[in-house]
Amino acid sequence: MTELRKDPIDGTWVIVSGERRRRPMALRGLSPHPEPGSCPFCPGNEAETPKEVFAVRPASSVPDAPGWEIRVFPNKYPALLPGGDFVERTDGVYLSAAGVGVHEVIVETPLHGLHLADMEEDHLALLLQVYARRIRQLSEDPRVRYVLVFRNHGFLAGATKSHPHSQVLALPRVPEKVERELCGARRYFERHGRCVFCDVLEREGRDRTRVILENDGFVALAPYASRVPYEFAVYPRRHASRFEEIGEEETSLLAGIVRAVLGRVRDALGDPAFHYVLHTAPATGPVPSPDIERLEVSYHWHLEVLPRLTSLAGFEWGSGMYINVVPPEEAAEHLRGASVPEA
Amino acid sequence: MTELRKDPIDGTWVIVSGERRRRPMALRGLSPHPEPGSCPFCPGNEAETPKEVFAVRPASSVPDAPGWEIRVFPNKYPALLPGGDFVERTDGVYLSAAGVGVHEVIVETPLHGLHLADMEEDHLALLLQVYARRIRQLSEDPRVRYVLVFRNHGFLAGATKSHPHSQVLALPRVPEKVERELCGARRYFERHGRCVFCDVLEREGRDRTRVILENDGFVALAPYASRVPYEFAVYPRRHASRFEEIGEEETSLLAGIVRAVLGRVRDALGDPAFHYVLHTAPATGPVPSPDIERLEVSYHWHLEVLPRLTSLAGFEWGSGMYINVVPPEEAAEHLRGASVPEA
Repeated sequence: MTELRKDPIDGTWVIVSGERRRRPMALRGLSPHPEPGSCPFCPGNEAETPKEVFAVRPASSVPDAPGWEIRVFPNKYPALLPGGDFVERTDGVYLSAAGVGVHEVIVETPLHGLHLADMEEDHLALLLQVYARRIRQLSEDPRVRYVLVFRNHGFLAGATKSHPHSQVLALPRVPEKVERELCGARRYFERHGRCVFCDVLEREGRDRTRVILENDGFVALAPYASRVPYEFAVYPRRHASRFEEIGEEETSLLAGIVRAVLGRVRDALGDPAFHYVLHTAPATGPVPSPDIERLEVSYHWHLEVLPRLTSLAGFEWGSGMYINVVPPEEAAEHLRGASVPEA
Repeated sequence: MTELRKDPIDGTWVIVSGERRRRPMALRGLSPHPEPGSCPFCPGNEAETPKEVFAVRPASSVPDAPGWEIRVFPNKYPALLPGGDFVERTDGVYLSAAGVGVHEVIVETPLHGLHLADMEEDHLALLLQVYARRIRQLSEDPRVRYVLVFRNHGFLAGATKSHPHSQVLALPRVPEKVERELCGARRYFERHGRCVFCDVLEREGRDRTRVILENDGFVALAPYASRVPYEFAVYPRRHASRFEEIGEEETSLLAGIVRAVLGRVRDALGDPAFHYVLHTAPATGPVPSPDIERLEVSYHWHLEVLPRLTSLAGFEWGSGMYINVVPPEEAAEHLRGASVPEA
């Protein structure tokens, strides 16, 4: 059973996915089994995963066999299922929708134990291009309203496999967090005639206290209202609403800064678990809507990175607010000072 | 430094509280020290905590000395500070506010290792009355807009002390999660002329599939859109917007059902970490507003309980949606069947 359900009071959407329970470690305490000895994401074990839908591999190699540098396939325990139409169903006070979507795994490298901060810059740039490619491709499905790329590093961040991998979820709805950003950015644009992200970058460029690192294309900041200690976000300097339209030179610059800041986080904080998530504009669907133009000028794609140094506690769950014990100015200062090579 | 900051894009509020960093285990990895040998929450160690502001203790005993059954004092590492006015400050694109509020600890029992499910029903009823009393008392402060009572059980739920305790946070703003519930409930009331919670209870009473346990006063449900496996919520059958106006007989009935369901969760799932949070209507302030009456008819207090069997991962952080791998119907069936005494 896989369906989307809307909470009748606060409107939160939940993907109820009995399928995903089968995956190892789905429930702590209920299935505390360690990872199996052989890693299904390692070269040579391709038969243990679903068939690849895309790979960066030499023309001479064959699909689902070693030789790849990056490999994309459907998640074996998908949160959403690709078949069927997206239909909503009202049943009295409750609203549900078909759990339609695509859930993919991107194995980032053949090297099982590689930390993202140690990935060659060219390879990371290649990975970012694969992200862009999957977003473009999955957005072509008219049922898809949003493609979310995210990554979990470490058990405390929910990663059940230690082999470096990212995930892609093509969703039939724009997720709430992105919707809130889109609305906030649009409201700001209507009031000020400018992109709120561009204004934040301008301000931070003057203040300097929350800037961690920058290069010709990108700025890494500890956001003003960081939700967790050492949160950071990477923004393109040039206004652009869609990550998936990124150019080749820009991917290199982005790879450089992501790698450098993640290296500093690892070195300064003892390799903490972290999440990252890519926020880009929604898929426009086959027919461009009249709202698209406003969205393009008001929204600004970015990468959010959330180290998991603290637990989310009852206060956060119950309030939707956050308590952050490390002011972002301190976090930025700490990371600026951490001794790793410049981006 | 303690202040409230609003994210300029999505409007999320964060309490930036450098003070709280000093507490043990504030940052995993950065301060991995175990609890000290002697527990400051145990009887005899009252001098290690701030002075009590309230206690259930015999008239013959003296404050800040043994003899108490329940003891309330300011949090030693407060997220908000009680002094000063609540003022907002705009600084260009950013909005902050004074980190004004009250953060208290309620030590629930002198018994260090007691699980909430093993607490005597009368004692738990007494604890619930202390919650009500603190909400009423802290709401008298005109700066306080909301009093949130919550509890973390287990390290994975963010509890840094294992001695049973709850926390109270008196906030200068209605937290977003509660605001969303209030708005959703009001919209439903405007459309249907009924309380959405009452309609949910009526529906669940007919369906039965998500009911875990009930008694004359309360119903424990696995919510339709449960965000995490084995989430449950306890609702009073009788419409009431404010927990803090609960009567004595009702507290006994509530204690009975909370104790029973927590016992089932512990026995069925191997004592998982959990949070609970009490959602009641906001403090009305000294002058009742014209909106109060609508709020009283549309909102319905409840207790939300969130076991921590899975990690919140990048998807949840990035989307504001949840993936729940245990359908609430299965969770309810499992907990209905767990062999512990009836409430």
